This record gives sequence, C-alpha cells and structure tokens, in this order.
Amino acid sequence: MTASSAMQSIRERIENLESIEEIRQLKARYWRSCDRKDHRAVLDCFISGKVNIDYGPIGVFNNREAFVKVFRELGCRDNIVDMHHGANPEIELVDSHHARGFWDLYFFTIDTDGRTFMQLGGRYEDRYLRLDGNWKIESTRFVAVSRFGASVDAAGSLTI
Amino acid sequence: MTASSAMQSIRERIENLESIEEIRQLKARYWRSCDRKDHRAVLDCFISGKVNIDYGPIGVFNNREAFVKVFRELGCRDNIVDMHHGANPEIELVDSHHARGFWDLYFFTIDTDGRTFMQLGGRYEDRYLRLDGNWKIESTRFVAVSRFGASVDAAGSLTI
Amino acid sequence: MTASSAMQSIRERIENLESIEEIRQLKARYWRSCDRKDHRAVLDCFISGKVNIDYGPIGVFNNREAFVKVFRELGCRDNIVDMHHGANPEIELVDSHHARGFWDLYFFTIDTDGRTFMQLGGRYEDRYLRLDGNWKIESTRFVAVSRFGASVDAAGSLTI
Repeated sequence: MTASSAMQSIRERIENLESIEEIRQLKARYWRSCDRKDHRAVLDCFISGKVNIDYGPIGVFNNREAFVKVFRELGCRDNIVDMHHGANPEIELVDSHHARGFWDLYFFTIDTDGRTFMQLGGRYEDRYLRLDGNWKIESTRFVAVSRFGASVDAAGSLTI
Repeated sequence: MTASSAMQSIRERIENLESIEEIRQLKARYWRSCDRKDHRAVLDCFISGKVNIDYGPIGVFNNREAFVKVFRELGCRDNIVDMHHGANPEIELVDSHHARGFWDLYFFTIDTDGRTFMQLGGRYEDRYLRLDGNWKIESTRFVAVSRFGASVDAAGSLTI
Repeated sequence: MTASSAMQSIRERIENLESIEEIRQLKARYWRSCDRKDHRAVLDCFISGKVNIDYGPIGVFNNREAFVKVFRELGCRDNIVDMHHGANPEIELVDSHHARGFWDLYFFTIDTDGRTFMQLGGRYEDRYLRLDGNWKIESTRFVAVSRFGASVDAAGSLTI
C-alpha cells in the first residue's frame, strides 16, 4: 500500500465515523423537534424530493410537506405533551451517500384536555441520503409494538 | 515521531472509535433481538465459548445456549410484550481485543394474558471480546434497581 | 495540501470524534452517578471553578459544591429510587476546548416512604469545557416539559 492510498483509507474510515455520528444527531434533532412542536425543523430532517414516510395508522406520505401538515394537526396542539426518545441505534453505511438505520422508540404522550396518556414502544426502519454534505431521512417506517394507556377521571382515578 | 509511527497512532485512534461504535451497536442489536423474540440473533451476541451471564433472579449461565433456552421460555411467549431500551453507555477499551461496558436499562413488560405490567430500571456491567474482528459479549451482569408494576382488572382498574 | 497539513486535518477530525464520544460518556457518568447516589462522582463531572447549574425549581447554583449539597439532601436518601436516562444527544464542538450539548431526559423517581412516583420528561442545554485533557460540564440548564405522577394508597390503588 502506498502512503497516499493508506491516507485515503484513513480518510474513508473517519468519514464513515462522522457519517454515523451525523445520522445519529439527525434523528435526535428530528425527535426533539417533534417534542418542541417545531414543524420547520421537522420538515428540514427529510429530503425535499420524493420521500417515503410510513407511520402506519397516522398515514403514509410521499413528500415531507404532506407529513408535516398532519404533524401540525396532531402533534402541535397546546394540549398535547409528547416525549419521543430514540433508543438502540444501529446505523449501517451502504456507501458514502446512503445508509440504513434501525432504532427503537419510547413515546409518551399526555392529552391535558382529554385527561388521557399513552405510552408506546416501537421500532423504526430508516434510509438516509447525503445531499450537499448533509444527511437527511429519505425513507422511514415506524411500527408500534407495545402500547399502554389510560384515562384519568376528575378525582384522579385511572382506567386503563 | 516518524511519519509511519504517526500513521500508526492515527490508525489506533480510529480503530478505538470504531470499536466503541461496534460495541454500542452490539448491545443495541442484543436488546432489539430480545424484543423481537429473535433467539438466534440473541445467541449470536455472545461468544460461543465460556461466557458469564449473571441476570440475578433470572439465572446465572456459563454458556449462551443455556441462557437462550431460558430466554425462549420466559421472553418468547406470544402474551409477553417487552421493551428493552439501553441508556447511558460508557465503553472503556482495555486493549484492542477487550473492553468493558456500563449501561443502564429501561425495561417495560406487558403480560397480555395475566393483565399485568412491570417497569424496571437497572444497570449492566459487561465485558466484550473481539474474535475474528467481531465484538461479542463475554460477560454481563444485570442488577435491577427500580421496580414498578401493577395488575389491571377486567374493568380497567389498576392495583400496584 | 502538503502531506503534513493533510495529517493535521486528519488529526483534528479524529480529535473531534473523540471529544463527542467523551462528552457523551461524561453525561452518561453524570446520570448514572446520580442514580447511584455517588455524590463524589457527581461533583467530578463539573468544572471546579465558576459553574452555571440551572435546575429550575431545584435551584440555581454557581459552584459544584453548592449543587452537590442539595443533591445529597434531595437525591441521596434511602427512600428515593431515581432513574435518569439521557436521550437524543446533539453535541456541537465550538472549538477544541468548548462544546455545546442538547439532550432529553427520561426521569422516573419512586419515594418508597411517601408511596408516590413521578415520571418526568425534559431537556438539557449544556456547555462543556476541556481542562487538562478532560471534558467537564461548565454550564447546564434543565427544563421539565412532561410530568406524570401519582400516589399509591395502602391497598395499592392509584391517585394521579
């Protein structure tokens, strides 16, 4: 191996580590933006072209604007307090511009008007694309697995 | 420092970062495989020789097959819905083939037959070994710290 | 680019990745030490000089000793069982010795005497400083967002 090809291999390994880190932070920013009801930041996590967002009962969307419209209706109301926490990330780089991701989610939502709460566990299967140096979500599919919720009456008693 | 020893030091630092990343993904895969009831993938997270799995009341196992047998009995039934989420990882490399890991766990299990649920917090102390280029779990000890559970009657009322 | 400036750039990129990793582990150690009621390890996560710890209703502290005094009073009692799990990290390096961090927190606390529990979701905004090669917390602000708690009577019934 020549000195310059050795350097090239080192650069690629660093770039791979940087990509994994950027993708992890992309998803962190996505979930945090959901919880902050920051719909512009949510939009910015996805590529602007054809995207594949499959959130099951919430809907299937092929552009980010369509998804964010529903997000604003469902998740951005004052009485909704959401907690999206990503867990167990596995990021696989396909090449320097494509990656796959597997995550689990802890989700807890409180509806302060309806006096209900729900905890949900589930998993994501994602594809990411690097455009102009930035990793974005190209495809994401969420499946809920574990569900636990209840309503609370005026006296503070719980019904599951 | 000569150019080649400088290159050597750089290679080692990259390899250390890659090892930490691989170990983190190993544990992510372990927990996700538990939740998916994928007992073959669970088995594959451990070394094939003498292993030390100390899960307290669940049992102490010195080979991965013995543990997976119990996992299949306890965790792989249709009425059990588990959520294992790793948190707060600290990975320490001992050398290029040995590492230690400290993690916390959020665990939530629903028994849809028994109408019970339990939330559990605890911590892991692990040792990892790199064999044929792959990091595997050589030793793992889990201690539960925080426990919270309840049963739900037919009318949806809760008893802790 | 000369060979030596190329090497310099590679060294900086590795150092950045190492810094992000160290900061992530610093926060993991902080939360784990809180849950272990290890007040000396908690103290060691902060710089020894002027620090800015803004934990809202718990207090605002400008030196680590003042914070740890309150932590020992509130968090280190035998009847308190805490679970602090960091989520969704975004670490931004400002330069080689300064960084910012954004995290979410899942917190669950059980008071075994008072028979109460509380779950809390919130977010941190941090600043980190590297002193003598070690990253420490220089500034941290926590804001609670989602709160859910209940008391449990002697018969095991819950009131939110």
